[in-house]
Amino acid sequence: MTLTPQNREKLRQVSVSTLTTCLYRKGLKRVWPSGILPLAKGQPRLVGEAYTLRFVPAREDVGAGSYGTAANVHQRAFEDCPPGHVLVMDTRGETRGCSCGDLLIGRLKARGCAGIVTDGGFRDTLDIEGLDFPVYQRCAVPAPSFGYLHAAEANVPVGCGDVAVYPGDIVVGDQDGVVVIPAAIANEIAETAYEQTEYETFAAGEVAKGRTIIGLYPATEQSMAEFRAWRDARHGRA
Amino acid sequence: MTLTPQNREKLRQVSVSTLTTCLYRKGLKRVWPSGILPLAKGQPRLVGEAYTLRFVPAREDVGAGSYGTAANVHQRAFEDCPPGHVLVMDTRGETRGCSCGDLLIGRLKARGCAGIVTDGGFRDTLDIEGLDFPVYQRCAVPAPSFGYLHAAEANVPVGCGDVAVYPGDIVVGDQDGVVVIPAAIANEIAETAYEQTEYETFAAGEVAKGRTIIGLYPATEQSMAEFRAWRDARHGRA
Amino acid sequence: MTLTPQNREKLRQVSVSTLTTCLYRKGLKRVWPSGILPLAKGQPRLVGEAYTLRFVPAREDVGAGSYGTAANVHQRAFEDCPPGHVLVMDTRGETRGCSCGDLLIGRLKARGCAGIVTDGGFRDTLDIEGLDFPVYQRCAVPAPSFGYLHAAEANVPVGCGDVAVYPGDIVVGDQDGVVVIPAAIANEIAETAYEQTEYETFAAGEVAKGRTIIGLYPATEQSMAEFRAWRDARHGRA
Amino acid sequence: MTLTPQNREKLRQVSVSTLTTCLYRKGLKRVWPSGILPLAKGQPRLVGEAYTLRFVPAREDVGAGSYGTAANVHQRAFEDCPPGHVLVMDTRGETRGCSCGDLLIGRLKARGCAGIVTDGGFRDTLDIEGLDFPVYQRCAVPAPSFGYLHAAEANVPVGCGDVAVYPGDIVVGDQDGVVVIPAAIANEIAETAYEQTEYETFAAGEVAKGRTIIGLYPATEQSMAEFRAWRDARHGRA
Amino acid sequence: MTLTPQNREKLRQVSVSTLTTCLYRKGLKRVWPSGILPLAKGQPRLVGEAYTLRFVPAREDVGAGSYGTAANVHQRAFEDCPPGHVLVMDTRGETRGCSCGDLLIGRLKARGCAGIVTDGGFRDTLDIEGLDFPVYQRCAVPAPSFGYLHAAEANVPVGCGDVAVYPGDIVVGDQDGVVVIPAAIANEIAETAYEQTEYETFAAGEVAKGRTIIGLYPATEQSMAEFRAWRDARHGRA
Amino acid sequence: MTLTPQNREKLRQVSVSTLTTCLYRKGLKRVWPSGILPLAKGQPRLVGEAYTLRFVPAREDVGAGSYGTAANVHQRAFEDCPPGHVLVMDTRGETRGCSCGDLLIGRLKARGCAGIVTDGGFRDTLDIEGLDFPVYQRCAVPAPSFGYLHAAEANVPVGCGDVAVYPGDIVVGDQDGVVVIPAAIANEIAETAYEQTEYETFAAGEVAKGRTIIGLYPATEQSMAEFRAWRDARHGRA
Repeated sequence: MTLTPQNREKLRQVSVSTLTTCLYRKGLKRVWPSGILPLAKGQPRLVGEAYTLRFVPAREDVGAGSYGTAANVHQRAFEDCPPGHVLVMDTRGETRGCSCGDLLIGRLKARGCAGIVTDGGFRDTLDIEGLDFPVYQRCAVPAPSFGYLHAAEANVPVGCGDVAVYPGDIVVGDQDGVVVIPAAIANEIAETAYEQTEYETFAAGEVAKGRTIIGLYPATEQSMAEFRAWRDARHGRA
Repeated sequence: MTLTPQNREKLRQVSVSTLTTCLYRKGLKRVWPSGILPLAKGQPRLVGEAYTLRFVPAREDVGAGSYGTAANVHQRAFEDCPPGHVLVMDTRGETRGCSCGDLLIGRLKARGCAGIVTDGGFRDTLDIEGLDFPVYQRCAVPAPSFGYLHAAEANVPVGCGDVAVYPGDIVVGDQDGVVVIPAAIANEIAETAYEQTEYETFAAGEVAKGRTIIGLYPATEQSMAEFRAWRDARHGRA
Repeated sequence: MTLTPQNREKLRQVSVSTLTTCLYRKGLKRVWPSGILPLAKGQPRLVGEAYTLRFVPAREDVGAGSYGTAANVHQRAFEDCPPGHVLVMDTRGETRGCSCGDLLIGRLKARGCAGIVTDGGFRDTLDIEGLDFPVYQRCAVPAPSFGYLHAAEANVPVGCGDVAVYPGDIVVGDQDGVVVIPAAIANEIAETAYEQTEYETFAAGEVAKGRTIIGLYPATEQSMAEFRAWRDARHGRA
Repeated sequence: MTLTPQNREKLRQVSVSTLTTCLYRKGLKRVWPSGILPLAKGQPRLVGEAYTLRFVPAREDVGAGSYGTAANVHQRAFEDCPPGHVLVMDTRGETRGCSCGDLLIGRLKARGCAGIVTDGGFRDTLDIEGLDFPVYQRCAVPAPSFGYLHAAEANVPVGCGDVAVYPGDIVVGDQDGVVVIPAAIANEIAETAYEQTEYETFAAGEVAKGRTIIGLYPATEQSMAEFRAWRDARHGRA
Repeated sequence: MTLTPQNREKLRQVSVSTLTTCLYRKGLKRVWPSGILPLAKGQPRLVGEAYTLRFVPAREDVGAGSYGTAANVHQRAFEDCPPGHVLVMDTRGETRGCSCGDLLIGRLKARGCAGIVTDGGFRDTLDIEGLDFPVYQRCAVPAPSFGYLHAAEANVPVGCGDVAVYPGDIVVGDQDGVVVIPAAIANEIAETAYEQTEYETFAAGEVAKGRTIIGLYPATEQSMAEFRAWRDARHGRA
Repeated sequence: MTLTPQNREKLRQVSVSTLTTCLYRKGLKRVWPSGILPLAKGQPRLVGEAYTLRFVPAREDVGAGSYGTAANVHQRAFEDCPPGHVLVMDTRGETRGCSCGDLLIGRLKARGCAGIVTDGGFRDTLDIEGLDFPVYQRCAVPAPSFGYLHAAEANVPVGCGDVAVYPGDIVVGDQDGVVVIPAAIANEIAETAYEQTEYETFAAGEVAKGRTIIGLYPATEQSMAEFRAWRDARHGRA
């Protein structure tokens, strides 16, 4: 199922926290890779389909030959990840050698991709920040990938941190990290999360006015009625 | 013993580093939970009495029923923590499920509490930053607390990170983290730390002028005499 | 071999990432201590010779006596580290007691030293930020060093994090961390890294224009020719 | 609900692995504390009701006075834990100071208790092995508990490792570690686990004869029929 | 290249330590996964070709359906791993859910496979020990694999712990752990390791007689001459 | 001060747990390196003076040349450690490359040394077990030390695990690990620990007979009187 443009926009307006709650209610609990955070505070929001890249540990007798050629799995992924997609890298949490640097991420941006996520780390982070692009990692890793990471295959099921990512899953990121939404339920989740977000805006306003949280969050029938009145008033409905 | 208003103010003006030193001199070494840091750079200073909340690991057959009711130990703590107090959460370092989100922290602020500290992490951190409230945690945790954390009891002795916290202890926080001061010595510590801070201001000025640290820090009889002259001049005393 | 003033300046203009790559090509792979980062975003760049300080774990029967005297190995290092040098502290990764605070770092700055690096952490970090000095650490540690760290000797070979540091090695730091360059090859590395940096600037420009990374990075004969033309044009050479 | 003597005996004959599977099928997934293992290979099997003891981190101003008296919460737990029960210690994973030594465990044995489990470690392990008693821990910890652990209260809900333990839960241990069974379903679990164990004995025999695992494990209607015939034959039923 | 029967036998007689040294001399340094150890002391030596199985983290919406059928990737690997081969499991270090239990390992043994290695852990370890089969893991994990591990594909390049494993690599294990030898150099390594082992036997004898290690290990021309004489005498050559 | 032969013998008969308690009472709390355990169950007890060896992380441009010569700091330590002494290795916890193998440890035994302790790990552990020598380590490490460890200097103050070791300190080891006793108090500690051990033997007998721990441990005036009577009777005194 394809994510509609409206729902893609909705996902940009809801938080990762709200999405994990909506997924939890659908029975999906393992959707958030711990410790993977935005490179820069205030970088653009991340929403897009996952395009995956899987690494194995490097070994001295394997693979050096293809570096810099079109046959290199690592570099080719940055040419093949479709526009609007997020490159999700499964490095098995490698933070001794980098996942890539600013040139490859610049290429991803130039090609119209939506962002990049690794469970390892990037180098040249000051230059990457200059790209103003959605970038998620564990920590800065200035060392080259050689000796640590060998790209094995692209666009297969992978793990990123502690979470499964399947090609086509919807990846959403904000200040708290990223969440992975199975493609089949992405439209539904976008809608319920958007409505939940509106309720939370209503509730935050009530709390700021001094109202108790009990009976307000989680919502009750009574508070839902108040919410609907608030929302109608806000949207200028009679 | 109650912390006097003057000493509460003094604690707001001294650093956590100075306080750990003053406590060390009184034989108290285990007073600072490592790895628990302010959510946002520049948030207000934290000073207040500890009100504690203890969690045990969640188990599927326990406790779901009370969520959203006044009987829920987790939510009730945010209604019961007295104004001026700090809610200190013992999650056993849980960072897979959140300690709470922006609505509960907003409630704490609305009720006049002094701040919140967890040895786990919070969700909705962007919204929490908007509250401009003293918030300390290990890392952002967007996932719900369900499945990970079950609140067992409030206002009992707890551990927060690697440190004991007893109800009524004074909790102080700055950019370097938080420190826990036993209630019985809080006034005394506030006074010695304040004096120590004045000395350090004097010493930093000397160092900036090019003076050697030897004979200046730690203080000597000679440097104390210079300090007292400096302080008297500064305070306009003859 | 002494680092020339020109090459010292070049090292200030190249990134730690580029330096690790140049060192990798010379067969030096273990040159970057993971997890040691700048205290403050935007602090000055770090370049200087290493002056080392080695700690052992503190023990209750050893060393308290010399504190505050010229015989104290810890404090003396801040008087002895030569101007232009970087004080590199081997604490065995200790983050329960601090490596030092703002007064000692202020002294280092006043004496014209180039910066400080620890594989532990510093206290009084807000005051340290005010010094506008290159400072690298693992995390803030407000607690005193007593009980955790005892300075054993200065200017011997040490480990800092996972990396060897020999007195006189050149230490360079930026946002991604620090790198250690053996003194014997520092001039050579400065020059190749500077050239490499110019190529990367050229390549980043090409990427931003939409050019594929294949055939551009790593450089090919063709791309090098383009680069030389670009560089000549940029430097106003005919 | 009380565990019947027959089911207590059945629990002694089934493995922790089989029990975690049976609990998983009832929706209970968080029942096994990782990394807590038998002190000695070949020690007696562990089955008994949980009696809990909760520690907080020690602090220098708290609690030293009661040591060696009947008012000491730590020592009193070894007098109060009922015969047939298991003392479960929540130390928050403390392995720098011991949970206790051989004398206290000897007392537990002399009083007819069923065993002891800590998420920290014990001292005098050679002497403890000599007691031939079911003992589970993380690792040997020869240092005293002073300075690290302060017993706060007994027989309250606790965490042990990553698992909740409520007073009265049934704790079972074998070579793979321990599992916690909620009291309310202990009889049911004992029975299904016992039956499951018989099936696994049948299946292991089939596998040893060269039969494929597909269609055998998990059980199918066909394999269940074979199992029942095997069991009847084994038990001498016509 | 195929491992000859003579070299397979030689590999059974040399240690993992000697093999890592021989591989180091060929420029292969990343060949030993740290922390993966024999399940039981005294279990048979492990030598065989790698057959790999790759897992991704489990997700609630994926894969439960195939369990117990021939389509299940996890179970099918135990039917497909060829006789004489070693099943190498890449679980990304998962120790919360098991890699498998005694029934599947029993099947592997019954089919004539050479052993099993996981970077996670097995359940039913007492029963597995009874199989007297070469089994390597990180630690015992009694909990089911459900909820933690989903088998994605078999016989592709994987990581096991921190090491790459390609299908057909030769895996050797002893008390110190396992080592992975690239297939292309396995015969050569077997021969040099066997010779090296003979030298070490000679050297150990010399050391036991009181000879200094200097000039003996590493070998010198002189010590090699003595070794050859010793070997000839031992093998009864004139 | 020299350890008397009688006290050396007493240290062989008391446990590491009893020694940590006696040291604690003298104000020495940081005397036991966590996680460093005997290589083999049942190996001989360890008692001897510390001779230390300090490593720094290896770097590709340093030190390979001296390997196998008398100038090599690593190998020379095994020739220089005096008979009756314990070689204590400070590897900074390195477990990717070994501290040494069976040949060097065999040399140490042949020279009459008392044992070896590393905060890293040894290779060839099966052969080391065959030496029947007191050996303490963190875990088996089959890989060579090259690339990871470079021996910097011998017989200086070091850290081993989390503990300071000074040349001449007395190192004692049993099943629970090792403890480091400052030379100046070793005779005194040996005597008090020996007496304490006798009391614990008395107390264990009382506990086995069913006596409560309260009033027995820690000792009271009353229990000490009983102990003295028991001891006199045992030693056949009137």
